[in-house]
Amino acid sequence: MSMLIDGLQYANWSEKIFRQMRAGGVDAVHVTITYHETFRETVLQIEKWNRWFEQFPDLIFQGRTAADVTLARATGRTAIFFGSQNPSCIEDDIGLVEIMHTLGLRFMQLTYNNQSLLATGCYEAEDIGLTRMGKEVVREMNRVGLVVDMSHSGSRSTFHAIEHSSRPIAITHANPHSWHPALRNKSDDLLRALGESGGMLGFSVYPHHLKDGTACTVQSFADMIARTIDLMGEDHVGIGTDLCQDQPDSIVEWMRTGRWSKTVDFGEGSADAPGFPEMPSWFHDNRDFGSIADGLRVTGMGDAVIAKVMGDNWLTFFEKSFGPQDAAGKRNDRAAE
Amino acid sequence: MSMLIDGLQYANWSEKIFRQMRAGGVDAVHVTITYHETFRETVLQIEKWNRWFEQFPDLIFQGRTAADVTLARATGRTAIFFGSQNPSCIEDDIGLVEIMHTLGLRFMQLTYNNQSLLATGCYEAEDIGLTRMGKEVVREMNRVGLVVDMSHSGSRSTFHAIEHSSRPIAITHANPHSWHPALRNKSDDLLRALGESGGMLGFSVYPHHLKDGTACTVQSFADMIARTIDLMGEDHVGIGTDLCQDQPDSIVEWMRTGRWSKTVDFGEGSADAPGFPEMPSWFHDNRDFGSIADGLRVTGMGDAVIAKVMGDNWLTFFEKSFGPQDAAGKRNDRAAE
Repeated sequence: MSMLIDGLQYANWSEKIFRQMRAGGVDAVHVTITYHETFRETVLQIEKWNRWFEQFPDLIFQGRTAADVTLARATGRTAIFFGSQNPSCIEDDIGLVEIMHTLGLRFMQLTYNNQSLLATGCYEAEDIGLTRMGKEVVREMNRVGLVVDMSHSGSRSTFHAIEHSSRPIAITHANPHSWHPALRNKSDDLLRALGESGGMLGFSVYPHHLKDGTACTVQSFADMIARTIDLMGEDHVGIGTDLCQDQPDSIVEWMRTGRWSKTVDFGEGSADAPGFPEMPSWFHDNRDFGSIADGLRVTGMGDAVIAKVMGDNWLTFFEKSFGPQDAAGKRNDRAAE
Repeated sequence: MSMLIDGLQYANWSEKIFRQMRAGGVDAVHVTITYHETFRETVLQIEKWNRWFEQFPDLIFQGRTAADVTLARATGRTAIFFGSQNPSCIEDDIGLVEIMHTLGLRFMQLTYNNQSLLATGCYEAEDIGLTRMGKEVVREMNRVGLVVDMSHSGSRSTFHAIEHSSRPIAITHANPHSWHPALRNKSDDLLRALGESGGMLGFSVYPHHLKDGTACTVQSFADMIARTIDLMGEDHVGIGTDLCQDQPDSIVEWMRTGRWSKTVDFGEGSADAPGFPEMPSWFHDNRDFGSIADGLRVTGMGDAVIAKVMGDNWLTFFEKSFGPQDAAGKRNDRAAE
């Protein structure tokens, strides 16, 4: 039974979107609940989700373990797994790593474009790799079962994270730089190292990460996936759409600028195009995953591999990533060093 | 297999005390983790507990469900259940009820001596009962499985809580006023209503709650328990020692005065005796529960009833109290009204 799992979304959530998830047969989604929010502000976001879980119990519930994906499939619902795109939510307090995990956080980016207390973002001029606190926090994330996500980090920091983490890490939403040379996309060397370490790449449908942007064809996207499998292996890739459905442009400003600057940072956009980019014609919402699977089929990919890409690889990754390290029984080889 | 469960302690926790719990065969303890602390400060207390759980995994672990008491017994450890003696930790935000439950809170007092946002404490001149927010919060506590504890509340507020709560409430640490007329002890009418509603009383060994204070004999204490069973029934009583072992007097000042006054409130103490009172000779630490059981035996109480008092009643109460209301399958009769 193959699963449909999206490795990242940050929508303006509503009953409409939850119903589209069901219409699209989406079993699980890693949702961003926080960027630059403090711990207390992040808890307010969780409170908001708790209200949705209470309001729409027939559509969604909070996912905490891989088994919840199976439960979602069995009960016709979507399991929602929490993630943070920046470590602001743990402030300068390593004890908040376990607290956030208890509250259900399952992914945390060490950086969001900028230097953080933990590592360097992909927009900084210099990348110093993991900081002293960064190494401590990665070890703590490994211990409790909180996945290190390096989607918005610099290259050196990402190599450091792969090396330092005793459990596989993820790049939940990005594409190969060799396909589309955006600052957020990743080099072949890095992707190869990610795959060899047991980590996961989620392919992004966010136009700034796509060759030809909004005009990118589904076949170009699918061909890129097939080539990336040649590079990383068929077990280490999935989807991470970065779908930001129904968000007002004020949100992309918050994502990019938070409270760290008094002037606007356009991030991947520009002064001419400061808002959310228009999505490609073949992916607008959670009912459109079939177009990606169809595109993969056209590349000649077999059903078993397509199933891995569309969700089974994420499920396997969830199984080994979300529990406490000791209970998991096995660690990445590097943990023995 | 009868259990040994203490319905409330607030010690200056240490490896020594955790080892005494094991030496005393204590299967579970409801520990106070917070009084006047804000949400964030309460989270810091949980972080401190997480460190202890990590440091002493062979002695203690965090209890979340009644099954954890059985697990504790089976693995020779003590399950630690969190509680708050005041609702400061939820601030003015009902969403924090579920957040605190997710973090493991299983008991919360609606008041600590003073008027709170939710109800009236036992030291106020007037008792207005449950406030508007109090009624909402009790309903939310019922929903998620967070026990309403009225140990430090006024009489009218406590009657209101019994009436308004759709699940049985607890008075985790107090004694009958008819035995010792302290402001913190409870009237026979209230205790009868508590028992009839399926609630629990935990008998306190804190000297200010004892007839003759520190000089109280174990037989006087045991006789009082036997008489209270005549009043409430044998299924609704347990132990709630209120043991404050190894605490400096600065702590009792924090407990009593928090940040609500610039002058010292002596609470149950006095200017002459402002600190913690000396414990009775027969109960100093977690190895002394046998003296209580022995005292009960002398009253002529049978082993089965003694087992209920020493822990089995708390276990039954935990079983029906800590899960979400719907999953529990049955609610208190009044819920149907």
